[in-house]
Amino acid sequence: MLFAWPVSAPARSKRPKAAVAALSQRSQADGLIVLLTDFGVSDPYVGVMKGAIASVNPDLRVIDLTHEIAPHDICCAAFFLAQSGPHFPQGTTFIVVVDPGAGSDRRGLIVRTQHATLAGPDNGVLIQGAGDAAEIHSLTETRWHGSCRSHTFPGRDVFAPVGAHAAGGTPPGQFGSLVRDPVHLPESAASRVICIDRFGNAVTNVRPDAISAEATVRCGEFEAQRVSLTYATANPGDALALVNSYGLVELAVNQGNAAESLRISVGDRVYPEDVY
Amino acid sequence: MLFAWPVSAPARSKRPKAAVAALSQRSQADGLIVLLTDFGVSDPYVGVMKGAIASVNPDLRVIDLTHEIAPHDICCAAFFLAQSGPHFPQGTTFIVVVDPGAGSDRRGLIVRTQHATLAGPDNGVLIQGAGDAAEIHSLTETRWHGSCRSHTFPGRDVFAPVGAHAAGGTPPGQFGSLVRDPVHLPESAASRVICIDRFGNAVTNVRPDAISAEATVRCGEFEAQRVSLTYATANPGDALALVNSYGLVELAVNQGNAAESLRISVGDRVYPEDVY
Amino acid sequence: MLFAWPVSAPARSKRPKAAVAALSQRSQADGLIVLLTDFGVSDPYVGVMKGAIASVNPDLRVIDLTHEIAPHDICCAAFFLAQSGPHFPQGTTFIVVVDPGAGSDRRGLIVRTQHATLAGPDNGVLIQGAGDAAEIHSLTETRWHGSCRSHTFPGRDVFAPVGAHAAGGTPPGQFGSLVRDPVHLPESAASRVICIDRFGNAVTNVRPDAISAEATVRCGEFEAQRVSLTYATANPGDALALVNSYGLVELAVNQGNAAESLRISVGDRVYPEDVY
Repeated sequence: MLFAWPVSAPARSKRPKAAVAALSQRSQADGLIVLLTDFGVSDPYVGVMKGAIASVNPDLRVIDLTHEIAPHDICCAAFFLAQSGPHFPQGTTFIVVVDPGAGSDRRGLIVRTQHATLAGPDNGVLIQGAGDAAEIHSLTETRWHGSCRSHTFPGRDVFAPVGAHAAGGTPPGQFGSLVRDPVHLPESAASRVICIDRFGNAVTNVRPDAISAEATVRCGEFEAQRVSLTYATANPGDALALVNSYGLVELAVNQGNAAESLRISVGDRVYPEDVY
Repeated sequence: MLFAWPVSAPARSKRPKAAVAALSQRSQADGLIVLLTDFGVSDPYVGVMKGAIASVNPDLRVIDLTHEIAPHDICCAAFFLAQSGPHFPQGTTFIVVVDPGAGSDRRGLIVRTQHATLAGPDNGVLIQGAGDAAEIHSLTETRWHGSCRSHTFPGRDVFAPVGAHAAGGTPPGQFGSLVRDPVHLPESAASRVICIDRFGNAVTNVRPDAISAEATVRCGEFEAQRVSLTYATANPGDALALVNSYGLVELAVNQGNAAESLRISVGDRVYPEDVY
Repeated sequence: MLFAWPVSAPARSKRPKAAVAALSQRSQADGLIVLLTDFGVSDPYVGVMKGAIASVNPDLRVIDLTHEIAPHDICCAAFFLAQSGPHFPQGTTFIVVVDPGAGSDRRGLIVRTQHATLAGPDNGVLIQGAGDAAEIHSLTETRWHGSCRSHTFPGRDVFAPVGAHAAGGTPPGQFGSLVRDPVHLPESAASRVICIDRFGNAVTNVRPDAISAEATVRCGEFEAQRVSLTYATANPGDALALVNSYGLVELAVNQGNAAESLRISVGDRVYPEDVY
């Protein structure tokens, strides 16, 4: 599996007992929903999904992970889900809707892992993103769906209400029958650029422990002689490879835009010199 | 009236009694505000409106419908409001600020319908979007306004605080005198493209029950021989007309961008062959 | 100091006693966090910061001021912070992360003013934005940081958890030692364009009380004969200078885009004819 989801949440910071006691006593993520889609925010689609969630239970809290995934880019969705998920509290419900086949008769899933609950189409994103998928159910029990039944917007009609019910405590088995054959994304062993962030940094799928810190990293016009720890180890305008906040190798230009100036695109192959 | 707002909320999904009992007992949308503007999110304007709302009552919850309406496009605002409103719980308060005449002495309104409360400028958007407008008041009682009184940002100074007070339970009649002559948008009977979504799908104002399912639909370079139910009825790359999640005819290319590849723009006339 | 932060919150609007009593009794901004970054919303960075906040305390409420500040534009960040801050309730916690030196060993700060608490890197933004900085501490006590310790994402690892603890009531002195030598932004006395908003209006740093209302204002191809109070004082398509919602002089075209049509850019010098 390309991206690993930890089996437990990151260790909590050590806080003095008084401060901990001041926090809410209940399960941290009780009622917390995270949305991840390729809907953008120019249309009212995301807002309407939140309306569908509030119609089920107005007390749920909703966080947007991002809605700007390139249309239908299920690999990027799985990557963002796997990398971001562990930073949310134990018990968070993720609704993930990125689907080239929206409106087909594709099955919907609810996936329960040790860390989280995930709802979305059965196209490989949830399974790849979740890592240790423990229990998978279909969404065939329509009593948990919304009252609108379009053929084109399952995010509003199925996944938002199902996610809202799940975040409110409905057990996964209530939503449909057990699924033993979920779709998986095709695995890719090649080292490549997964996404370009707003600053023009190119995020790769190369783990730093797979190469030597002294490795030369090449990608198109990009070349760096070693893997650094921070942007500031390079002079402004200079290229560098570093371990980013995902814990992966990233191609950057200090205070510059690496993707633009060195013509790096999503999918480009990355060549670390001494993979061992 | 072009866009209809249902007189009541969509029927709730049938949930087992135990689950319903677990939900909050209070009115579902007590304290829920939805924002719809053309302010974008690059500037701090929307954030500041939320600050003005929190300054009135920090317990109100706020959902963004969208802030990316094309500047001053009141027709699109009315369309999004009418189509999206019914997906929010009964009693939601909508603050809608899209106004080519911002900063003029245009009157502000609060509109109470059976389903919702709406606040914004008196430029036709609220009335068109609300449909069954039941009770309309002006916002002349300045004690409900914010403490800042600019001439250029009524969203922050008037509509946000008024909406916050309304969402907290202040009756519409408190905000000003009864209005019997609200502004209406000009009606347009022509079939046309209302908006283009992020995927390049062209949303029209054509209702499927106004044409035969076998109708040929044309718009510029676009042509489809029938009205389909899902994107997946066409091969990837093929054009199709379908009934979208708004319940309206939409011009699309399966897994492609219809607006770009077939040069469709907002306002383009749509020609269904057999309107009856 | 260029931008002034009021020493107290704006006076609250005069509301009838009954309505006031209906509001929450507790401190208005108890648990309210405002985020201001240059991260954009295409990447999951902002969502992950919210996950880090919810991991500390899921009951905190979070408002986005904006995340679309031009990468590394610390002057714009300080301006938005100073202008927007007063519109949030007393006691709000602002987490502000715009930093050309992210990942260097730059010190983090927590700043407590009479109106607010601010957390972010020690690069001048907090001090410039806060105005009457009263008490400044470093963030050296790592027990308040998150469990992830990347070298590239202090927003997630330090500022989000520290801000969450501060919003939950942890006193500033708990986070680190007193700081007496914070970094300041370079002062600029020149009159210039600070930012361009979505509508193409050019916001300047010129205060209206620094010029006569009859002054001619010039900036590149822009010229206006006086400073107006509202957009509507000019005919559609005509240029005008007006006092905007920040209380500063703004260069606009009524119902048009001044920056595009009159070629105005951020940083352009502004020439009011009769500065006195």
